[in-house]
Amino acid sequence: MKGLTHLDAAGQAHMVDVSAKPATSRMATAEGVVRMRAETLALIRAGDAKKGDVLGTARLAGIMAAKKTHDLIPLCHPLALSKITVDLALDDALPGVRVTATAKVSGQTGVEMEALTAVSVACLTIYDMVKAVDRGMEIGAIRLLAKSGGQSGDFRRDEAGTEEKP
Amino acid sequence: MKGLTHLDAAGQAHMVDVSAKPATSRMATAEGVVRMRAETLALIRAGDAKKGDVLGTARLAGIMAAKKTHDLIPLCHPLALSKITVDLALDDALPGVRVTATAKVSGQTGVEMEALTAVSVACLTIYDMVKAVDRGMEIGAIRLLAKSGGQSGDFRRDEAGTEEKP
Amino acid sequence: MKGLTHLDAAGQAHMVDVSAKPATSRMATAEGVVRMRAETLALIRAGDAKKGDVLGTARLAGIMAAKKTHDLIPLCHPLALSKITVDLALDDALPGVRVTATAKVSGQTGVEMEALTAVSVACLTIYDMVKAVDRGMEIGAIRLLAKSGGQSGDFRRDEAGTEEKP
Amino acid sequence: MKGLTHLDAAGQAHMVDVSAKPATSRMATAEGVVRMRAETLALIRAGDAKKGDVLGTARLAGIMAAKKTHDLIPLCHPLALSKITVDLALDDALPGVRVTATAKVSGQTGVEMEALTAVSVACLTIYDMVKAVDRGMEIGAIRLLAKSGGQSGDFRRDEAGTEEKP
Amino acid sequence: MKGLTHLDAAGQAHMVDVSAKPATSRMATAEGVVRMRAETLALIRAGDAKKGDVLGTARLAGIMAAKKTHDLIPLCHPLALSKITVDLALDDALPGVRVTATAKVSGQTGVEMEALTAVSVACLTIYDMVKAVDRGMEIGAIRLLAKSGGQSGDFRRDEAGTEEKP
Amino acid sequence: MKGLTHLDAAGQAHMVDVSAKPATSRMATAEGVVRMRAETLALIRAGDAKKGDVLGTARLAGIMAAKKTHDLIPLCHPLALSKITVDLALDDALPGVRVTATAKVSGQTGVEMEALTAVSVACLTIYDMVKAVDRGMEIGAIRLLAKSGGQSGDFRRDEAGTEEKP
Repeated sequence: MKGLTHLDAAGQAHMVDVSAKPATSRMATAEGVVRMRAETLALIRAGDAKKGDVLGTARLAGIMAAKKTHDLIPLCHPLALSKITVDLALDDALPGVRVTATAKVSGQTGVEMEALTAVSVACLTIYDMVKAVDRGMEIGAIRLLAKSGGQSGDFRRDEAGTEEKP
Repeated sequence: MKGLTHLDAAGQAHMVDVSAKPATSRMATAEGVVRMRAETLALIRAGDAKKGDVLGTARLAGIMAAKKTHDLIPLCHPLALSKITVDLALDDALPGVRVTATAKVSGQTGVEMEALTAVSVACLTIYDMVKAVDRGMEIGAIRLLAKSGGQSGDFRRDEAGTEEKP
Repeated sequence: MKGLTHLDAAGQAHMVDVSAKPATSRMATAEGVVRMRAETLALIRAGDAKKGDVLGTARLAGIMAAKKTHDLIPLCHPLALSKITVDLALDDALPGVRVTATAKVSGQTGVEMEALTAVSVACLTIYDMVKAVDRGMEIGAIRLLAKSGGQSGDFRRDEAGTEEKP
Repeated sequence: MKGLTHLDAAGQAHMVDVSAKPATSRMATAEGVVRMRAETLALIRAGDAKKGDVLGTARLAGIMAAKKTHDLIPLCHPLALSKITVDLALDDALPGVRVTATAKVSGQTGVEMEALTAVSVACLTIYDMVKAVDRGMEIGAIRLLAKSGGQSGDFRRDEAGTEEKP
Repeated sequence: MKGLTHLDAAGQAHMVDVSAKPATSRMATAEGVVRMRAETLALIRAGDAKKGDVLGTARLAGIMAAKKTHDLIPLCHPLALSKITVDLALDDALPGVRVTATAKVSGQTGVEMEALTAVSVACLTIYDMVKAVDRGMEIGAIRLLAKSGGQSGDFRRDEAGTEEKP
Repeated sequence: MKGLTHLDAAGQAHMVDVSAKPATSRMATAEGVVRMRAETLALIRAGDAKKGDVLGTARLAGIMAAKKTHDLIPLCHPLALSKITVDLALDDALPGVRVTATAKVSGQTGVEMEALTAVSVACLTIYDMVKAVDRGMEIGAIRLLAKSGGQSGDFRRDEAGTEEKP
């Protein structure tokens, strides 16, 4: 297990120096869920059937938040993202909404935090839009699904939730 | 179950009009966790023993993010927050870090989203600072613990995870 | 005709001091249009029939931009907006999209700029989303429709486009 | 007429993936006007003779807004702009102020939105600074004048307001 | 000497809870200087004689930065500022530019940081605009001149640079 | 002495066009100090011995502010910073805190303003955190220590405070 690259020799927080890294094509995908009552999900589904606004609003909030990642996470580098997608699926088994986000960049550092930030803010937006009817919702299972590009190698979460390197 | 206050008659997203609400004292507390390997938690604990930077950085990121809530969540009102606290505790039982945030305001609308946003961004910051050693971490259990002030009444999550109104 | 309140005695830009003004209920409504080819409008209408995304995205962009007004317009005061609405209507007569926005606040200064900023950014967002098929679009007719509250009295634009005070 | 590149197969809003595009030199010029009473224009001209603050403030607001374009327009990519200019001219024929903005970048996507955003916010700033004496002003004729670089070819608006490709 | 109100019992950074404080009228004035070569000052003076842009740009940058104070200083509360002024004076004795800023608010906490932030960013902007001809400039003497309103009493710096309470 | 590159032929503020410049590796280091009473410094030192929060908070504020430089300084270009470090040292000789910041980028323009902005905001944050016990503090000696990369050549401030080119 390596040391924490965000802590320097004296243990103080710092931005990792990526200036010597080559700019390569990088991609990351993350997911998360908002668990809610079945009635709350039904309400979103009904609203969505008409205008799609809960999901549409959450999708845009996630995309816009990904562009603010370096402004939210203190030691993240600013990145010129080339793509962000946020997908939302209603899931009766949860019951709730499943959010998946993918970020891409050609740059010197990875985009895991951008994908995770997009997921988190999309989930928060769903919470905000239905909290009037269900304060007991829970946001969870926010995690990295896959990552490619960069020196540390590719990563893909396997189904058992443990890591594998394909 | 009431309708979704963020969707108007035509089902379109809009900011709820709070102009007729009185400005009252409001407070909300939320929590969340970052689950990680025991070795990762040990690394944070050791770093924390020296300089406290992982937890200190996450605490500040959470506080600063709470002030950006209305910039992240599309339909949230801007609020002049009077207090934000973010507390972090290492928890061997998870294993991982437990984050709790409280927001206060004297205003026309509640601060649940500010507390939840502080928790989410603090969790993302922890993830960012230790991701080099543990990409399999998971952020979860982000939920409202308590809420007071405002027309909709007080809320307190009971231990079983279901709602109660004290 | 009064002098320009944003220019002080020496002609230098400054924020008007509103500290002595009472906090009153204020509202402003503004409108604007995006003129485009009839085929472009048809494309938006067809897309809208399916998912409503062009109009939905522009609506949210306008709402979020209203909250950033003081960050965009150098001498605007920060305001705790209590409501923002953005409405979009397809108009075959233009042909194009007509955007209307209303902002409300209880504060010491008016919200004309917030309504106008919401309209402007909603129009820019429509432009962005369909520019790939129509670079000749034109944004125009951005103007204040009505304003109430505050010392300067109410304002309502009459049909001939000249001012009246009802 | 091509399809709308901002809408994916399912009609949902998304950021266009530009990661496969080469970084080329791109430029865009846009314009717009603020129409006002002749007396209002005279007031700006008189103030401008002394200190230039209305036009100077609007110029800076436009430049700074161009840098925020990706934060305002939901599906715009963040770009490392290499140049932004905003020019303002008093025009007795309108009567009013004519605003022209040019943006340049070496990047994977065009800068039309940056030029149009600079124009829009400069116009809004002019409105803000003289609204105390003229609430009937109108912002209009915001449009792309020219664009170069990128796969879609160059664009130049001809005098009749229709498109031509030189 | 009181303890540090930003550090809680455990020594962790937190925002001070101002929710129990009354909203009172508060004002703060701060100053600072940019020291430079006499030739550099002459260049600003000559430029200023024509268009006033170095000073005009710095003034606006200071005003806009004051509105961002809570976004820059981690533990500052967001405030609805009612006034910000930034004044700049060329001073041959330095030689350089002297910057003074005043902020006002009706709120629960003071505006020293807003005044100091306005001064700092105005000074940085001056540095930026003339750095091509003088990299040896120095920004200094940034300090609070006066403060009124709030529980801690009024403050006015005396000429000797030590504090007095009038 | 060259002319001011931020002023165009007509003396109006504009962003310098860097589009023709090659992207080279650039670095800048700046410093500044916060002078305070010896008792205030002792208080920071005591707090720091326990949890390091004053210095830790200032360090993060400086790092985050460097990423906002183009949003604060009107004519600065947005840059994809590859590294920012902020170091703080308690100095009994001042007495006070000495702040040093270094910024790196591979880009078309220098990073002096990023380093100077990091220093300034770190100093302001220190002021904010101890102002309750010492309102007479002074921020000063903010200056560029060294700069490398770019057409204008390297710069290193010598001990006498005058410039030299090594």
